[in-house]
Amino acid sequence: MDNSILREVRQSKVPLQKPPVSDGQRRFRDALSRRASTVNIVTTDGAAGRAGFTATAVCAVTDAPPTLLVCINRHSSVYDVVKQNQVLCVSSLSIKQRELSNVFGGKTPMTERFAHGTWHIMPSGALALDGAVATFDCKISTIHRAGSHDVFFCEVLNFAVNEGETSLLYGNRDYHQLQPLT
Amino acid sequence: MDNSILREVRQSKVPLQKPPVSDGQRRFRDALSRRASTVNIVTTDGAAGRAGFTATAVCAVTDAPPTLLVCINRHSSVYDVVKQNQVLCVSSLSIKQRELSNVFGGKTPMTERFAHGTWHIMPSGALALDGAVATFDCKISTIHRAGSHDVFFCEVLNFAVNEGETSLLYGNRDYHQLQPLT
Repeated sequence: MDNSILREVRQSKVPLQKPPVSDGQRRFRDALSRRASTVNIVTTDGAAGRAGFTATAVCAVTDAPPTLLVCINRHSSVYDVVKQNQVLCVSSLSIKQRELSNVFGGKTPMTERFAHGTWHIMPSGALALDGAVATFDCKISTIHRAGSHDVFFCEVLNFAVNEGETSLLYGNRDYHQLQPLT
Repeated sequence: MDNSILREVRQSKVPLQKPPVSDGQRRFRDALSRRASTVNIVTTDGAAGRAGFTATAVCAVTDAPPTLLVCINRHSSVYDVVKQNQVLCVSSLSIKQRELSNVFGGKTPMTERFAHGTWHIMPSGALALDGAVATFDCKISTIHRAGSHDVFFCEVLNFAVNEGETSLLYGNRDYHQLQPLT
């Protein structure tokens, strides 16, 4: 997105809207839906406020230094909050946390989302989800613009694992878990 | 392979080595192993030669324009080939293609890998795998450095889906498929 367009939209008091989806984009999304990802809730907190959202576009980059990336649409309501706070925490969900994925991925107002689930504050100030399969507390190191999205490169400062939990996955447009191949 | 660093190493008879892994990095890898990803074979072809490797660090970024990213260690033998060719093709594997994942993720010499599987040439010149769940033919648009890795942002020029196939996943350090939640 071109910032000048965003400024123009805001100044004209028109609600911030994503552009319409073309047939080509719809087919691309269909193709991507055949792939699968771990489901995460990404949170942030700081001077710009607290926010959290469900994300599958989270990817491990390197362990030297430990780094994850998170893709965020610049049209999304959380984009500016994350960018200004410069910290985030990735909680990779367990299969027991499907409803939390819906809360943080749907239309629930931001002020009500954190009433669901149990949370603890990480050193960055962001909240991590109790019972998540793994949590990664991060500071944002760099940001790379890619079309409609910014990719936040995040240095992992602290992380933890809950050994007994099973990962929640999203693929074929529904929730799943891992099934070993025979 | 045209690789000035590799040539230099070969001339000095010192094997190309990745730095040793620390305890912290090992624990971080353990935490990441709890997450799961689709398994892909990434191929390239062009002036720098043909190469292909198994990758899980492939992430959808945006559909405006259709973009994937692929993380590649700068120590890897394929890094310079991909960078110089400026094209790549991502084939997201089906559960029938586990052995191909091993071939392209192991020690099989590059010249022997493509004897396994059936391939077709995409408009970019890179090879796509017959029977893959989905294939994404790309040109590299930008590269972002992140620690030991470069992240290749790839504009998707062509893509295809095989409707009947089931995705191969890697998580908990083993191959899996999706199992619906009850």
